[in-house]
Amino acid sequence: MAEFEQRDGESRLPFDPATVEADAGLIFIGAIRSPWKERKDCPKNLSQARERGKTAMIEINKPFRPGLDGLKEGNLAHILSWLDRAPRNLIAQRPRHLETARGTFALRSPVRPNPIGLHTVRLISVDIAAGLVEIDAIDLIDGTPVLDLKPYYPTTDSLHDRFDGESA
Amino acid sequence: MAEFEQRDGESRLPFDPATVEADAGLIFIGAIRSPWKERKDCPKNLSQARERGKTAMIEINKPFRPGLDGLKEGNLAHILSWLDRAPRNLIAQRPRHLETARGTFALRSPVRPNPIGLHTVRLISVDIAAGLVEIDAIDLIDGTPVLDLKPYYPTTDSLHDRFDGESA
Repeated sequence: MAEFEQRDGESRLPFDPATVEADAGLIFIGAIRSPWKERKDCPKNLSQARERGKTAMIEINKPFRPGLDGLKEGNLAHILSWLDRAPRNLIAQRPRHLETARGTFALRSPVRPNPIGLHTVRLISVDIAAGLVEIDAIDLIDGTPVLDLKPYYPTTDSLHDRFDGESA
Repeated sequence: MAEFEQRDGESRLPFDPATVEADAGLIFIGAIRSPWKERKDCPKNLSQARERGKTAMIEINKPFRPGLDGLKEGNLAHILSWLDRAPRNLIAQRPRHLETARGTFALRSPVRPNPIGLHTVRLISVDIAAGLVEIDAIDLIDGTPVLDLKPYYPTTDSLHDRFDGESA
């Protein structure tokens, strides 16, 4: 995959998770419709995406649309995506903004053994019949598969307030 | 699966995601070591788990341990788990605490087309060589497979502060 070049200090797994026998199987429930058609145009994270001021759409495949019942305009939600263009075999890597390599699980890079993206967004509108959920912003390329939507609960999903003053 | 009985108002997918051909494959990077050995003992969410005052451990399989480099005591992180005991074919369901059924994507039930759990926790200790990460609490049964760890970033992962006063 030429768009992901290797850099100093990176280390690879002894196998490629993309080609070994899977431990479990995923099904795609829909796809992202995004203003970003190519990787070079895509914001690196949701802060950058929000600065661009463009909404995006989740298209949910027909059998899964009844699963949207109860989601409403203004709700906050997590989206889990499948980052299908990312290599899966780097276990330490050096993003452009870092001086040295770091373990994959200490980074939000799309390159990871299971390339599942986590995106916390605000719902702008929900059309259950059409299977369309408009969201305030997204840091994903158009067409990226979607695995799940979950409601966001401040009491369990936001942790830094709880632990402020306790952290080492 | 006798532990998940069906309730009024629930609706099923026309197929079972557990048995259709997968769109993508997951590999397990490790497993949870938890004080909760059976489903009946397991807290329903992380708030309940924290009230019990017991820590838990993530055991990372050997090839994936270099991926922990950069995670430190006190860090906040997301864990993605694979809820391997949950049925996958309910698209609307009625949890015990609700009067009426609701769409699966408006609930945090483990029963969903792709049963991926999202758990936001605080790291108590990180032993890269042993592949052991102690966490402040967990709402998972002992032995649950782990798919990913990601650092938690307040700027993008905590959204309710940003939208307070704007929500409908």
